[in-house]
Amino acid sequence: MNITKIIENKKNKKILNEDEITYAVNAYVMGIISDAQMASLLMAICINGMNIEETYFLTRAMIESGDVIDLSNIPGIKVDKHSTGGVGDKTTLVVAPIVASCGVSVAKLSGRGLGHTGGTIDKLESISGFKSDLSEEEFVQQVKEIGIVDAQQTKDIVPADKKMYALRDVTGTTRSVPLIASSIMSKKIAAGADKIILDVKTGSGALITDFEESVELAKMMVQIGKMFKKETIAVITDMNEPLGCSIGNGLEVKEAIKTLEGNGEKRLTNLCLTLASYMISMGKEISLEEAKKEAIDALASKRALNKFKEFISYQGGDLNNIKEAKYSYDVCVAEEGYIRDIDETSLAMECLSMGSGRINKDDSINHGVGMIIKKHIGDYVSKGDVLVTVYYDDKKANVENILKSFMLSKTKDEEFPLIYTIIK
Amino acid sequence: MNITKIIENKKNKKILNEDEITYAVNAYVMGIISDAQMASLLMAICINGMNIEETYFLTRAMIESGDVIDLSNIPGIKVDKHSTGGVGDKTTLVVAPIVASCGVSVAKLSGRGLGHTGGTIDKLESISGFKSDLSEEEFVQQVKEIGIVDAQQTKDIVPADKKMYALRDVTGTTRSVPLIASSIMSKKIAAGADKIILDVKTGSGALITDFEESVELAKMMVQIGKMFKKETIAVITDMNEPLGCSIGNGLEVKEAIKTLEGNGEKRLTNLCLTLASYMISMGKEISLEEAKKEAIDALASKRALNKFKEFISYQGGDLNNIKEAKYSYDVCVAEEGYIRDIDETSLAMECLSMGSGRINKDDSINHGVGMIIKKHIGDYVSKGDVLVTVYYDDKKANVENILKSFMLSKTKDEEFPLIYTIIK
Repeated sequence: MNITKIIENKKNKKILNEDEITYAVNAYVMGIISDAQMASLLMAICINGMNIEETYFLTRAMIESGDVIDLSNIPGIKVDKHSTGGVGDKTTLVVAPIVASCGVSVAKLSGRGLGHTGGTIDKLESISGFKSDLSEEEFVQQVKEIGIVDAQQTKDIVPADKKMYALRDVTGTTRSVPLIASSIMSKKIAAGADKIILDVKTGSGALITDFEESVELAKMMVQIGKMFKKETIAVITDMNEPLGCSIGNGLEVKEAIKTLEGNGEKRLTNLCLTLASYMISMGKEISLEEAKKEAIDALASKRALNKFKEFISYQGGDLNNIKEAKYSYDVCVAEEGYIRDIDETSLAMECLSMGSGRINKDDSINHGVGMIIKKHIGDYVSKGDVLVTVYYDDKKANVENILKSFMLSKTKDEEFPLIYTIIK
Repeated sequence: MNITKIIENKKNKKILNEDEITYAVNAYVMGIISDAQMASLLMAICINGMNIEETYFLTRAMIESGDVIDLSNIPGIKVDKHSTGGVGDKTTLVVAPIVASCGVSVAKLSGRGLGHTGGTIDKLESISGFKSDLSEEEFVQQVKEIGIVDAQQTKDIVPADKKMYALRDVTGTTRSVPLIASSIMSKKIAAGADKIILDVKTGSGALITDFEESVELAKMMVQIGKMFKKETIAVITDMNEPLGCSIGNGLEVKEAIKTLEGNGEKRLTNLCLTLASYMISMGKEISLEEAKKEAIDALASKRALNKFKEFISYQGGDLNNIKEAKYSYDVCVAEEGYIRDIDETSLAMECLSMGSGRINKDDSINHGVGMIIKKHIGDYVSKGDVLVTVYYDDKKANVENILKSFMLSKTKDEEFPLIYTIIK
C-alpha cells in the first residue's frame, strides 16, 4: 500500500476501497504515515467527500483500532445517546437519568469540550469528587449495578479517532459530514450499546450550520448504525440560541438538577423528554406514546432526580459541592423590543474567555464561571431588563459583546421550532 | 492571522488574499505552522485551485523567504531555462553551451532528480570531479568569466520551496498547476536572470500528462514572469517517448556531447536548437530566424562543444572520466511491426530500480547505470532487433517490463509532434 497513491486517488475524486481506507487508518495509528500525510488525506475527504460505503469502512477501521466494550452480559437493551454539540447543551445530564429510572440501561462515554461547545465530562467534573476516568470493568460493572454510567472515553477506545480528531482540530478539517459521522459512530459503536439516539444540532451555534448538511449527516449516521446492526434514530434539533438558560459547567449541572426537579426551562425540558422518550421506546420496545408517558412520570415522581443523585454519588460526586464562581454582575439591555435572535456562539466565546472551556486541547478550565441567560428568543424586553447574569472569577466577560449578541426587533418574529425532523 | 481560518477559506473555495498567503509561507518556514497544517492547505489548493493573483502572491512570498541572486553587475541580458522534467531530458547540457557560445550569458540553478524524471545536477555529477555546490559569489563570478554556470540551488535560495516541495512529495500534492508554477517561477526569479525560457513537457511521461493542463501551467508561468518584469516564453513539447536515446546520468552526458558534436538524435537536436534559438533571440534581441542560424552555426563550428568543455572544466569536471556501469546486455524484440508507442515512465522506473535515481530524497544513486534506446516511435522492427541496451552494475533491469514498454502495430501511425505550441 502506498499512502501517496491513496491520497491522490481521493484528490482525484475516486472512491477509496476497503483496503485503502483500512491501511490509512492503521498506518496512521501505528505512526507509519505522518500527520502531514493524514492531514492531506483528510482535506481531500473534506472537499471531495466519501460515500456511505467508504464512511462505513472508515468507521470500522477506527473501531478496530481499539477495544470494543462488551455489554452483552447485562440483561436488556442498552441505549446510548449522543449530541453533535451545542451551546448550553446539558441534555445528557437530564435524559440519561430519566431513561435509566424507567429501567433502560444507559452506558455512555462522553467527551470534553473544545472550542465554543462544551463537553459532558467537563460539566460533570464541576461536581466535587466526580470520577470520570473509569476502567472498562468499572464501566460495565456500574451499568450492571445501577443502570447508568457516564465516563470519559478511555485511551483504548477508538484511539484512531483521538489521534485524527486532534489533527483535524488544527488543520481546518473538522467540518466534513463523513469525518464527523465516522468519528461519532465509531465511538458509539465501540461503547457497546445496542441502540443509539443522536441529537444532531443545526443552526448558527452548531458544528454544521446548514440544515441540508445536518440532514445529510443524520442520514449517514443512521445508515452506518444500521450497517453495524444497531438501531439508530437521529433527531435534528435547533441550535440558534443557547439550550436552556445556562452556559458554563457548574451552572449547567445546576440547571440540569432544576430540570430534573420539574422546574426546567420549557424548550430544554421538551427536548429532554423527546430524546428520553425515543430511548425508552427503543429500550423497552414500546410505542413512543407509552414511552413519553413514562418519561413524564419519571420527572413528576422525582424518580429521574433520584437516579441522577445515585449516579453522581456512585461515581464519587458530591452534589452539595458544585464549583461556583466568586463574583457576578448583570448585563442589562438599553433598548426595548422583541428578541429576534441570540448569537449563542458569541456568548459561548465570552464564557470561553473567562475560562469555561478550552481553546487548546491541554488548557485547564474553570468549572465555576459562565452565564445565566434571562431572556430568550421571542421575549419582550424593556430598557434596564437583565439579559444575562455573568459569573466570573479573575476575568470578566465583555459587556459590549454580550449586548451585541441579542438582536432586537419591533415585532415578534416566528420562533425557531425545537425539533425539525426525525431520521430513522 | 489564524492558519486554521486560512485553510478553511481555501477549503471553502475562497480566494486567499496577499496577507493570508504571505503569512502561511512565512509561518511555515519559521516553523510556526506545522507540516500537517501546510499539507492540509496544499491539498485544498490542489483541489480548489488558485487564481493568477494568488499564485503571484505565493511565488513572491516564496522568493522573499530567501536570497535573490544579483546578476546586475554582469553586462548584457542573462537568460535562464527550465524544463518541467521528462525522461531522458538532457537538453540543458546541450542548450546552455550553444546559447553561451553565442554570447548570451546563461546563469542556471538546477535540481536533482526525484522519482522517474532525472535532474541536471545528477547528470553533471556523473562527470568525475564536477562541483555543483557553488556559493552565490562563485556562481556570479563564473557567469562573469565564462558566461555559463549550472549549480545546485543553495539552501539560501527559496528555502520555502525546498521545505514545501519535500512535503508535497510525500503528501500527494505534487500535481497542481499553481503549486508547480510558483515552485518553478520562484526559483527562476530568485536565480537572477532577466529572461526565462520554459520547456513545459506534456504527455504520458510528464508531470502534467494532460495537454490542456500543460497549456494552463505554461500560461500561468509566463504571466507570473511578466508580473515580475521578466520576459518569459514557454514551449510546450512532447513527452510521450524518452527524449533522445539515453536514460541514466552518465549515458545522458555522453549523448549530450554527441549532440554537441553534431551527431545527435534528430528530435533531441531539433528541440535543443529550438530552445537555444529562443534564448539567443531573447538575449540578443534579434529575430528568431537570425538566432536559429547562430545556434546551428554554434553546433557546426564546435563553438558550443568547446563552451561545454570550458564550463565542465571550470567547475572541476573531467570529461575523460564519466561514470560507467560495468556490465551491459541487449533486450531484443520477439515480434515485428512499427513502434506505435513507448512507455517512457516504465523504462525510467526500470532505470530507477537499477539505481539511476532516487525513490526517496536521501537515496544515493548510481551514476553509471541506465539504458540506450535503439528504436523510436515510427521505426520498423524485425524479430531479434535490439530495442534497448541495458547498462547495470549489481542489479539488472526486468526484460519483461522493458519489452512491454514498446507497443507495436502493423501499420505506421502518425508520429507525435515534437513541439506543440509556444506561449508568450
